[in-house]
Amino acid sequence: MSFQVTYRKKVEYINQGLSILLEQRPCYPTLLNAIKYSIQAGGKRLRPVLFLSAFELASQVCSQRAPMPGELDQVRPMACAIEMIHTYSLIHDDLPAMDDDDYRRGKPTNHKVFGEATAILAGDGLLNLAYEVMLENLPAVVEKLPDYLRAMSVIAGAAGISGMISGQCADMEIQSNNSCEDRLTYIHAHKTEALITSALKAGVMLRGGSMDMLNAVSGYGKALGLAFQITDDILDLTGDLAQLGKDPGSDKKMGKLTYPAKYGLSESKRMAQRYIEQAIHFLKPFGRNAEFLVSLANSILDRNQ
Amino acid sequence: MSFQVTYRKKVEYINQGLSILLEQRPCYPTLLNAIKYSIQAGGKRLRPVLFLSAFELASQVCSQRAPMPGELDQVRPMACAIEMIHTYSLIHDDLPAMDDDDYRRGKPTNHKVFGEATAILAGDGLLNLAYEVMLENLPAVVEKLPDYLRAMSVIAGAAGISGMISGQCADMEIQSNNSCEDRLTYIHAHKTEALITSALKAGVMLRGGSMDMLNAVSGYGKALGLAFQITDDILDLTGDLAQLGKDPGSDKKMGKLTYPAKYGLSESKRMAQRYIEQAIHFLKPFGRNAEFLVSLANSILDRNQ
Repeated sequence: MSFQVTYRKKVEYINQGLSILLEQRPCYPTLLNAIKYSIQAGGKRLRPVLFLSAFELASQVCSQRAPMPGELDQVRPMACAIEMIHTYSLIHDDLPAMDDDDYRRGKPTNHKVFGEATAILAGDGLLNLAYEVMLENLPAVVEKLPDYLRAMSVIAGAAGISGMISGQCADMEIQSNNSCEDRLTYIHAHKTEALITSALKAGVMLRGGSMDMLNAVSGYGKALGLAFQITDDILDLTGDLAQLGKDPGSDKKMGKLTYPAKYGLSESKRMAQRYIEQAIHFLKPFGRNAEFLVSLANSILDRNQ
Repeated sequence: MSFQVTYRKKVEYINQGLSILLEQRPCYPTLLNAIKYSIQAGGKRLRPVLFLSAFELASQVCSQRAPMPGELDQVRPMACAIEMIHTYSLIHDDLPAMDDDDYRRGKPTNHKVFGEATAILAGDGLLNLAYEVMLENLPAVVEKLPDYLRAMSVIAGAAGISGMISGQCADMEIQSNNSCEDRLTYIHAHKTEALITSALKAGVMLRGGSMDMLNAVSGYGKALGLAFQITDDILDLTGDLAQLGKDPGSDKKMGKLTYPAKYGLSESKRMAQRYIEQAIHFLKPFGRNAEFLVSLANSILDRNQ
C-alpha cells in the first residue's frame, strides 16, 4: 500500500473513533454542536497518526508482528484523546483575545460560528473530554495499568503548563524580535514538539517499548516537530486560504517571530530539509519496521496545508 | 475543636498542598504568576474540604478510626486537583465573553490583571494541572489503583461536558425567563452540584466506602449544592463587594435566572433551609461520625461570602 493510502486509512480509523466517542454523550446541545464542529472539521490528524504508528512500530520490534485489530481498538481512544487536546488548543488559539483568526481547516473558526463564550467552553470541554476518554478506556488487565498511566502522564505533561500552554503564552507575548533565537526555540519546543513527541512516546509505552526506543522516537519527534513548524511558518508566508484552510499572513500581522522572518525563505527550507534528515536518522535501528514513519517525515516537506 | 477551627485547619492544609504542588514546576513565568494569583486568592475551599471530610467519614465507618496523617497526605493532591478545577472554572466564567466580572475573592479578576489571553491560558493550565497532579500522585500499591481511578473518573465526569461545562453553557444562554424552572434546575445540577457531589463521592471511593455510603453522600451533596446555590443567588442580591469579594448584582445585570427572581427572597431562604435539612437527613446513618459534615451544612445558611 502506498504511503498516502495507508495514511488516509489511519485518518479514517481515527475519525471513526472520534465519532464513536462523541456519540450518546449527555451534553448541552449548543456545546456538543460546537465541539463536533471543530473535531469533525477534518485536519491532518498528525498526532494520533504518530501515536498509532509508534504503537505499531513497538509491536513489530517487541513481538515481531503487527498489532491485532482488537489491540488497535483498545488504544484508539488514547489516539483520539490526543487529537481532542490538539483541537481544543486550536479553538483557544484562534480566539479574538489570542491570534484572532477567522478560518481554520477551511471553515470559519469556532468563535466565528458559535460566539466567544461557547468557543471557550468547547475548548475546555475537549480538553476535559480527553481525560474522560482515557479514564473510560483503561485496560481491563490490572498489570497493564502502570504502562497505560505512564503514557497518560506523558501526554498530560506535554499538554500542560510545562508544555504546550507555556508555548502559547510565550508566543502571545512575542513581538517581532529577530534577536530572540532562544525564544523561538522555546516556543516551538513547547507549543509544537511537546505534544508530537508525547504522542510518539505514549504509543511506544503502551506496547512496553525499551528506553532506547523511547529515546529514538523522542529524537524523531523533536526533529519532525521543528521541520513541521518551519514548513508551517513558510506556508503562512507563501500559501493561500484555499490550500491552507486558514488565513495566510497572520504571523506577520501579529508580528510573530518566525523562521522565514529570521533566516529568510531559502535558508528556512534548507533547515526543514536538515531536520527531516535528522528525524529519519533516529529511526535507522528499526530498518523496514519504521518505513511508514520515514515516509511520513519525508511528506512534511511536501505539505501544502 | 469548634467547627470553625476545624474548617480553618482543613483550609490551611489544602492551601499548603496547593503551594507544594505549584513549587518548582517548569512554567512560563507570566503564566505561573497568573495561575498563582487565582489559586492563592483565598476562597472557601468548599469542594476539597468536602472531599477530605468524606474520606475521613469513610475511614471512621470502614475502619473505626480517623485517617493517619500519612494517609491524608496521600489523598491531598486529589483534594487540590478538585480546587484547581473549581478555580479554572471561575477564571473562565469571569472572562469578558462570559460573565464579564471585575472582582473575585476580593481581588480584581484574573483577566483584569493579566489580560484575556493569559487568563484563558491560566484556566486551561489549571484544568490540565488537575489531571497532571492526580496522575503524579497515583497510589504506589497496584491494588489501590482501581478505586483511585474510579474516583478520578467521577471527578472528570463532573468537570466535563456532561457536568459543569454544560451548566455554564446553559447559564450563558439564559436570559431572564421566570417560567424556566427546568432550566434553573439543569443549570444548578450541572454547574454547582456536579463537582460538589463528585468531591464527596471521590473521598468515599478512595477509602473503599460502600454503595450505601456513596448514595448517602450524593444525596447530601445534591441538597447542599442546591442550598449553596440559593444562598449564592441571595447574596448576589443582598451582599456587598467588601463581604462577597465579587461584584454583587451581576446576576441581575446579566438577566440571569435566579431563585430570588423566581420565588422571592423569603421563599428562597425557606427553600435553602429545607435543602439543608434534607442534606443533614442523608447523614443520619453515620451518627456522630458525620458531625463535621452536619455542621458544614448548617454553616451554609449563615454564609456571607
